[in-house]
Amino acid sequence: MTLPGRDDPRLLLRALFAAALGAADPSRVVPPHLPPPPSGRTVVVGAGKAAAAMAKAVEDHWPGPLSGLVITRYGHGAPTRRIEVVEAGHPMPDAAGSEAARRILDSVRGLGADDLVLFLASGGGSALMALPAPGVSLEDKRAVTQALLRCGATIGEINSVRKHLSAIKGGRLAAAAAPARMVTLAISDVPGDDPAVIASGPTVPDPSTFAEARAILAKYAIAPPAAIAAHLAAAAEESPKPGDPRLARSTFITVATPQQALLAAAAVARGAGVTPLLLGDAIEGEAREAALVHAGIARQAAAGKLIVGERALPLPAVLLSGGETTVTVRGAGRGGRNAEFLLALAIALDGQPGLYALAADTDGIDGTEDNAGALYAPDTAARAAAAGLDLGARLAGNDGYGAFAALGDLLITGPTLTNVNDFRAILVLETEPATATRE
Amino acid sequence: MTLPGRDDPRLLLRALFAAALGAADPSRVVPPHLPPPPSGRTVVVGAGKAAAAMAKAVEDHWPGPLSGLVITRYGHGAPTRRIEVVEAGHPMPDAAGSEAARRILDSVRGLGADDLVLFLASGGGSALMALPAPGVSLEDKRAVTQALLRCGATIGEINSVRKHLSAIKGGRLAAAAAPARMVTLAISDVPGDDPAVIASGPTVPDPSTFAEARAILAKYAIAPPAAIAAHLAAAAEESPKPGDPRLARSTFITVATPQQALLAAAAVARGAGVTPLLLGDAIEGEAREAALVHAGIARQAAAGKLIVGERALPLPAVLLSGGETTVTVRGAGRGGRNAEFLLALAIALDGQPGLYALAADTDGIDGTEDNAGALYAPDTAARAAAAGLDLGARLAGNDGYGAFAALGDLLITGPTLTNVNDFRAILVLETEPATATRE
Repeated sequence: MTLPGRDDPRLLLRALFAAALGAADPSRVVPPHLPPPPSGRTVVVGAGKAAAAMAKAVEDHWPGPLSGLVITRYGHGAPTRRIEVVEAGHPMPDAAGSEAARRILDSVRGLGADDLVLFLASGGGSALMALPAPGVSLEDKRAVTQALLRCGATIGEINSVRKHLSAIKGGRLAAAAAPARMVTLAISDVPGDDPAVIASGPTVPDPSTFAEARAILAKYAIAPPAAIAAHLAAAAEESPKPGDPRLARSTFITVATPQQALLAAAAVARGAGVTPLLLGDAIEGEAREAALVHAGIARQAAAGKLIVGERALPLPAVLLSGGETTVTVRGAGRGGRNAEFLLALAIALDGQPGLYALAADTDGIDGTEDNAGALYAPDTAARAAAAGLDLGARLAGNDGYGAFAALGDLLITGPTLTNVNDFRAILVLETEPATATRE
Repeated sequence: MTLPGRDDPRLLLRALFAAALGAADPSRVVPPHLPPPPSGRTVVVGAGKAAAAMAKAVEDHWPGPLSGLVITRYGHGAPTRRIEVVEAGHPMPDAAGSEAARRILDSVRGLGADDLVLFLASGGGSALMALPAPGVSLEDKRAVTQALLRCGATIGEINSVRKHLSAIKGGRLAAAAAPARMVTLAISDVPGDDPAVIASGPTVPDPSTFAEARAILAKYAIAPPAAIAAHLAAAAEESPKPGDPRLARSTFITVATPQQALLAAAAVARGAGVTPLLLGDAIEGEAREAALVHAGIARQAAAGKLIVGERALPLPAVLLSGGETTVTVRGAGRGGRNAEFLLALAIALDGQPGLYALAADTDGIDGTEDNAGALYAPDTAARAAAAGLDLGARLAGNDGYGAFAALGDLLITGPTLTNVNDFRAILVLETEPATATRE
């Protein structure tokens, strides 16, 4: 098989990214998992960056009548005929999302045992379908979340609290739909692909309790707004626990994962004669520091020193990783975590021949800009220097977007209508010994 | 072959570390590289954390007369008979080191073409053998280095400046020894094993110039102390450049490297039926963030999802890496970068069954404490909780030493008398599917 990128490594990297997106494309991954139609009604609901595309995939393949409503991010809509698509705020929840969440909850109430609810879950669903419990405001809920984040609470702790401030999360949507059958089709963007974490688990049992939520706030000495304190103290409606009969007919199917997307890229690499090394589907850490570690691994591979078992990783090779890095904002620049990662990588690799990279968010939007990510090549540093662009200063100012925009190396896809988190690929080509030598 | 760690994974990790140390043990790596004795005198000089042990290895195997002087860190001495060992300050240079450096420089002057100088280079040599140029004080030199570090100058830039403030670095030692033959035996602790970087290259040509040193200070708008400005302006004695005839008889042999140490550990792993994955010998980055990336890779391997080529990395496996992470000090705790790495790793792995780790400095001293590093096991978090030890708070306070000391999990070797930088091993055992499932 001919390697699309033998001549242009950037093309190969784009092909790998396209394969990853393809493996998470709702039109491909949703239809095979659709359940048989019920004898009663079919109601389709959902939330997330892939919600509209998932809804369209259901519509296009559903053999019977259906109705429904899904919530997606502004700009992530898709043309549907029967399922209403509401666009709402993300990552900051807004009233449009809450209003739609209320309608979703209402639409599944009063269904019967012959009816079916299809819940289409994807990344971003938690913010998009935010519906505070009665008496709690979005602002109050947000304030508590921020306080927990500042105290260094774990994501598990934060979720335990949030599920007790919500009218729909932590299994409450599924409980409301009982006795109807509930089938969740999920595109995972979370480490471990935990059903309770994707979109905050509106259709799966929640083992945590009001008492635990209170204890977590106490542990971090957080004094919540009065309405939240009152709600947690009243403990009026506990979230459904494992074994709750209302969730007995709720099933959960993960239709796409970060790992599957990375595996699809790995398959394309193999087809092109490039050895994939799939480091992880859930890599976390500060983006610029994760870049240093990736750079170290890439250099090791380039030097023929990345030993696996008895031998060195054969070249050409491609390091693949997914997950979600973070950016501690220091400067006033533009760009998301993938541009930041790639900028730090560019500085660390410093023009070493034979190393090319792509980093992008599979949802098509890296942070809040218009790019999915960016591309790096050995000539990046030289072109930056020629353009009077100080990459170190750009990194100091968190200006990955500005740097790669100036270089013409942004990767722009527009919203992809799916989301399996970040995608990173570092291509390691063989180089002549002479050119591989460093000062 | 029986696996020493099948019963106790901690034992296997210790065996891997011991193998890495063995591969860098001066008594083993120095003798095979000793040149034939000259017809004239043999003078042995050197500096670094391994200097005393390297000197002893020379003494024990040298077939003729010799004399000499080496500088090592306080506490890193070894019993020598003919070569004097001076202990000096590291990482902050002190007068003991400068005085000994002066004596080293004097001892190689006036040698003839029939004489031989053996220079024993190892990590730490740059600080231990700091000898400012005439008219420049240690304090001034330190001030400029600190200013460069604060401005984000690259290590290459810092070295270019320092080599023009030194009376011995940047090839000046070799130039002083001409016309004697010079053989450098080096134990590398630097990424890329660059001879010009190990101990700041006293015996290898320095392509950088006084003009470049001045330009670098100008670039960062650093106004150096008057004595340094005067020295750089005078440009009295340029460092030897590539092709300098005084260095024509200077050869450089790297006798141990981080990669060789990691390969030795890999061989022990293979012998025990454990698949090594040697990620890199020069991994850099903030220790706690590098730990998150390592944790992500380890979890991927544990899940059978770390794909290499066509298949998953076979378990049990061990991830090996070297290099030098950094710690941005935030708290008042105790501990070096390896304890910090391992503490962050412990929090990230969160007791997942089947994962064990060791992180240590191969010189035997992690930072400024009495430990080389520490050990992590799946029960670390539970034992910490039982002891009332908040690992998150310890990490926030940079108290890796305190945390692992309280747990009894410090790894204490004392000075190892060698230095191939950091050593990290994460052992990934197969676990029962039931126990491998996470919440």
